[in-house]
Amino acid sequence: MTPLQLGDKTFSSRLFTGTGKFASNQLMQEAIEVSESELVTVALRRVDMNNQADDILKHLKHKRINLLPNTSGVRTAKEAVFAAQLAREALETNWLKLEIHPDPKYLLPDPIETLKAAEELVKLGFIVLPYVQADPVLCKRLEEVGTAAVMPLGAPIGSNQGLQTKEMLRIIIEQSQVPVVVDAGIGAPSHAADAMEMGADAVLVNTAIAVSPNPVEMGKAFKLAVEAGRMAYEAKLATKSMGAEASSPLTAFLDEL
Amino acid sequence: MTPLQLGDKTFSSRLFTGTGKFASNQLMQEAIEVSESELVTVALRRVDMNNQADDILKHLKHKRINLLPNTSGVRTAKEAVFAAQLAREALETNWLKLEIHPDPKYLLPDPIETLKAAEELVKLGFIVLPYVQADPVLCKRLEEVGTAAVMPLGAPIGSNQGLQTKEMLRIIIEQSQVPVVVDAGIGAPSHAADAMEMGADAVLVNTAIAVSPNPVEMGKAFKLAVEAGRMAYEAKLATKSMGAEASSPLTAFLDEL
Amino acid sequence: MTPLQLGDKTFSSRLFTGTGKFASNQLMQEAIEVSESELVTVALRRVDMNNQADDILKHLKHKRINLLPNTSGVRTAKEAVFAAQLAREALETNWLKLEIHPDPKYLLPDPIETLKAAEELVKLGFIVLPYVQADPVLCKRLEEVGTAAVMPLGAPIGSNQGLQTKEMLRIIIEQSQVPVVVDAGIGAPSHAADAMEMGADAVLVNTAIAVSPNPVEMGKAFKLAVEAGRMAYEAKLATKSMGAEASSPLTAFLDEL
Amino acid sequence: MTPLQLGDKTFSSRLFTGTGKFASNQLMQEAIEVSESELVTVALRRVDMNNQADDILKHLKHKRINLLPNTSGVRTAKEAVFAAQLAREALETNWLKLEIHPDPKYLLPDPIETLKAAEELVKLGFIVLPYVQADPVLCKRLEEVGTAAVMPLGAPIGSNQGLQTKEMLRIIIEQSQVPVVVDAGIGAPSHAADAMEMGADAVLVNTAIAVSPNPVEMGKAFKLAVEAGRMAYEAKLATKSMGAEASSPLTAFLDEL
Repeated sequence: MTPLQLGDKTFSSRLFTGTGKFASNQLMQEAIEVSESELVTVALRRVDMNNQADDILKHLKHKRINLLPNTSGVRTAKEAVFAAQLAREALETNWLKLEIHPDPKYLLPDPIETLKAAEELVKLGFIVLPYVQADPVLCKRLEEVGTAAVMPLGAPIGSNQGLQTKEMLRIIIEQSQVPVVVDAGIGAPSHAADAMEMGADAVLVNTAIAVSPNPVEMGKAFKLAVEAGRMAYEAKLATKSMGAEASSPLTAFLDEL
Repeated sequence: MTPLQLGDKTFSSRLFTGTGKFASNQLMQEAIEVSESELVTVALRRVDMNNQADDILKHLKHKRINLLPNTSGVRTAKEAVFAAQLAREALETNWLKLEIHPDPKYLLPDPIETLKAAEELVKLGFIVLPYVQADPVLCKRLEEVGTAAVMPLGAPIGSNQGLQTKEMLRIIIEQSQVPVVVDAGIGAPSHAADAMEMGADAVLVNTAIAVSPNPVEMGKAFKLAVEAGRMAYEAKLATKSMGAEASSPLTAFLDEL
Repeated sequence: MTPLQLGDKTFSSRLFTGTGKFASNQLMQEAIEVSESELVTVALRRVDMNNQADDILKHLKHKRINLLPNTSGVRTAKEAVFAAQLAREALETNWLKLEIHPDPKYLLPDPIETLKAAEELVKLGFIVLPYVQADPVLCKRLEEVGTAAVMPLGAPIGSNQGLQTKEMLRIIIEQSQVPVVVDAGIGAPSHAADAMEMGADAVLVNTAIAVSPNPVEMGKAFKLAVEAGRMAYEAKLATKSMGAEASSPLTAFLDEL
Repeated sequence: MTPLQLGDKTFSSRLFTGTGKFASNQLMQEAIEVSESELVTVALRRVDMNNQADDILKHLKHKRINLLPNTSGVRTAKEAVFAAQLAREALETNWLKLEIHPDPKYLLPDPIETLKAAEELVKLGFIVLPYVQADPVLCKRLEEVGTAAVMPLGAPIGSNQGLQTKEMLRIIIEQSQVPVVVDAGIGAPSHAADAMEMGADAVLVNTAIAVSPNPVEMGKAFKLAVEAGRMAYEAKLATKSMGAEASSPLTAFLDEL
């Protein structure tokens, strides 16, 4: 599998993970480690900036792991830019997952505020990965203001519904000049493999690993599925057909006996 | 992952493979070996019974591989029983994939002839794995006459359409007392993972590996996907929901700053 | 719309209906009348053969309505043949919906017993409409023994899931020489329209009308949907495409102003 | 069926139609008239403003028909506002379908420019119906600036793919305080019925009628399907279930005979 170039880094793993909803930080650490994820998103508000012994970060010290602070909880571009600057200081990284979702029920992203914030954050030197609707025009506009990737959603966050926006994801992947990371909605390894087979550059999985009764096994399952999907994409899938073709040609061999 | 008990054998791998349609026997051998498949189906008519140096079998000598002769090409129960006996003699195994498909276009199986042949073959001492429509009642009847497994189809052979019969597969898996092997239609690793996540005991993949421009990489991709799907099934998937739940709880943390 | 030839009758309406599960016989009568259905299935066991004033039949006296007794409740071919003969006597019709479903949970039909009973009933002079899995080979075999139609299921009876077996229905419609009536699973007018657009000759709807809070309005809705789907089939649908085409050509007209 | 209140008008028909792609204006006129559509969109650039005998408008004189000029062909908010003002003068209506799609391949709408133009056009006294991605947050923002409806897409214009964005449409319908009109992608009467069954207030159909070999029959088919879907929505659909329930209760009646 080819490594993924994203921003100023190169990743062996195309599985990005999150840190929310785990039953314990210990389980989170183990699940993320077996997943071999190299980019892990952390909500800024979960980092205790006055506490040297801050709990969650302590569990993300593996040398493979790069932190990706996110702005989850903000509702406007202005709040996002402020949160991003705090995150940069606190976590000493200019990478940022930009999330602006005013809607408390489905946590769907705001396209207007997201574009506005992305433009400003790029100018401020951030490596911006915006979480957005599967909107191909918006994704092009984000790319044009300089985001390092686009992160269209497959379905609402935490819904585990899989790629409900598949046709739009297909167009985004076809048109994008920056990596496409499918984020939100991926609820099973098959969904992750499906996204990779379509040509997504990576996927971000959080809920499906974190709330599984066995997050460590699930982390490993997602690792394998992402590799399987990427491998199949690189090896090229056979096309679907309406009619069957025999797996092996039919002959009249019994008649000959 | 728990090993699979099927007939009188135990399998570590839940990926069964086929031997049709490969560009060369050498590619077939390599793809099957990297797939780590332990049960490999061979059309009886492709085995040259008068030729000691028979080509295809020579490429299936790996100690991990068990042969599963199939009756592809027969149209009736009578022909199937005859073919099965030839296969047992030629390949020295009483395992049999029972395929009776009179229809030359879609190669869909005949339920009546299949049940009749299965009943007779079980009496003759065969370990019978019948290829059938995703018909829950037929699967129960096959189980009752003593087949070692049932092999319902996901879609027409060679169509790569995935699990078109998903709702019926779900019922078959729920009701079956013998292993359920999803056969036919699996065209991508995500389809294989999906079948395993639903609780299928194994999948059989042939066309999708054989006709890929890179069958060796594809064999490996399917191996990983089957493992991912099984692991997720054993670890238990989170349920789908309509509304999103936040990956991490929303707080008014910015207001506090 | 072309009328439907089926058995020895011609139908203007391609919506067949059922009589189970209505809150009252009066509601049933009204819903069926507004649906304009001309073929209405009745479970033999619901007909009180010793009672001249039998309730359910009294409500099906409309001159447009033809009765289609069904064998729901039988488990074997033998029981079905017996029930069919009782029905012929009681209802004075040789039309028969053949239903053999031993499984009490999903009411899925038994392919073996159904074919056996169909063959015998045809010989006994019945117009046989068998309820079956969406199994293209079984449908051909039923046609070969002389059934007047085939009635493949879209999904389990009463599930309202729509056309879960769509790919197999497509093949059945392509191959059948007798009318194809999609039965079971149709839970919304859009499902009925979808079946008709694919080329099904008719649909049978029961639960979705009967259990609606407003069965009369729902009966009318299904009538319209079946007509819409048939009309679109006869007028020919446009094909799906991956890329969009403009609804009207783009011009640089504003530049010219 | 309840009539639809939209802007300052009340509509009996919930099928909106378009005028592009018909083989002739005569066919267009007939198809639209049998469809009973009361709101018909016309691309401003197709109206010859210097020609009293302008062809397309001559064919839309039916007293039932209200014109809905659209801005198809513009790429920015500024162009849209200019086009809208021309349309208002030329067609003597302040109703406007706002379409801004810079992308010439899929004609997908631009969320940023659309919101900006909508806000300005509302201030200028237009009744604005914006064509947008199925983006629930964007739809709320459009509603907040005063659009009379929102018109989320089901799939790319002209693709006939149906409701590819179904999960997002569901959320939009749940949250919207203004009518939701599903626009683009509806390729068959079953798709239109499906949208109405979900609770969409109306659908706009153009390509599927215009490019059918028989647009007049297709216009009628869509009329029926929209009515069927709306009726079912008002009468309330039964819910889907996993397991079947018998259409009529099973009894041991044969045993009693």
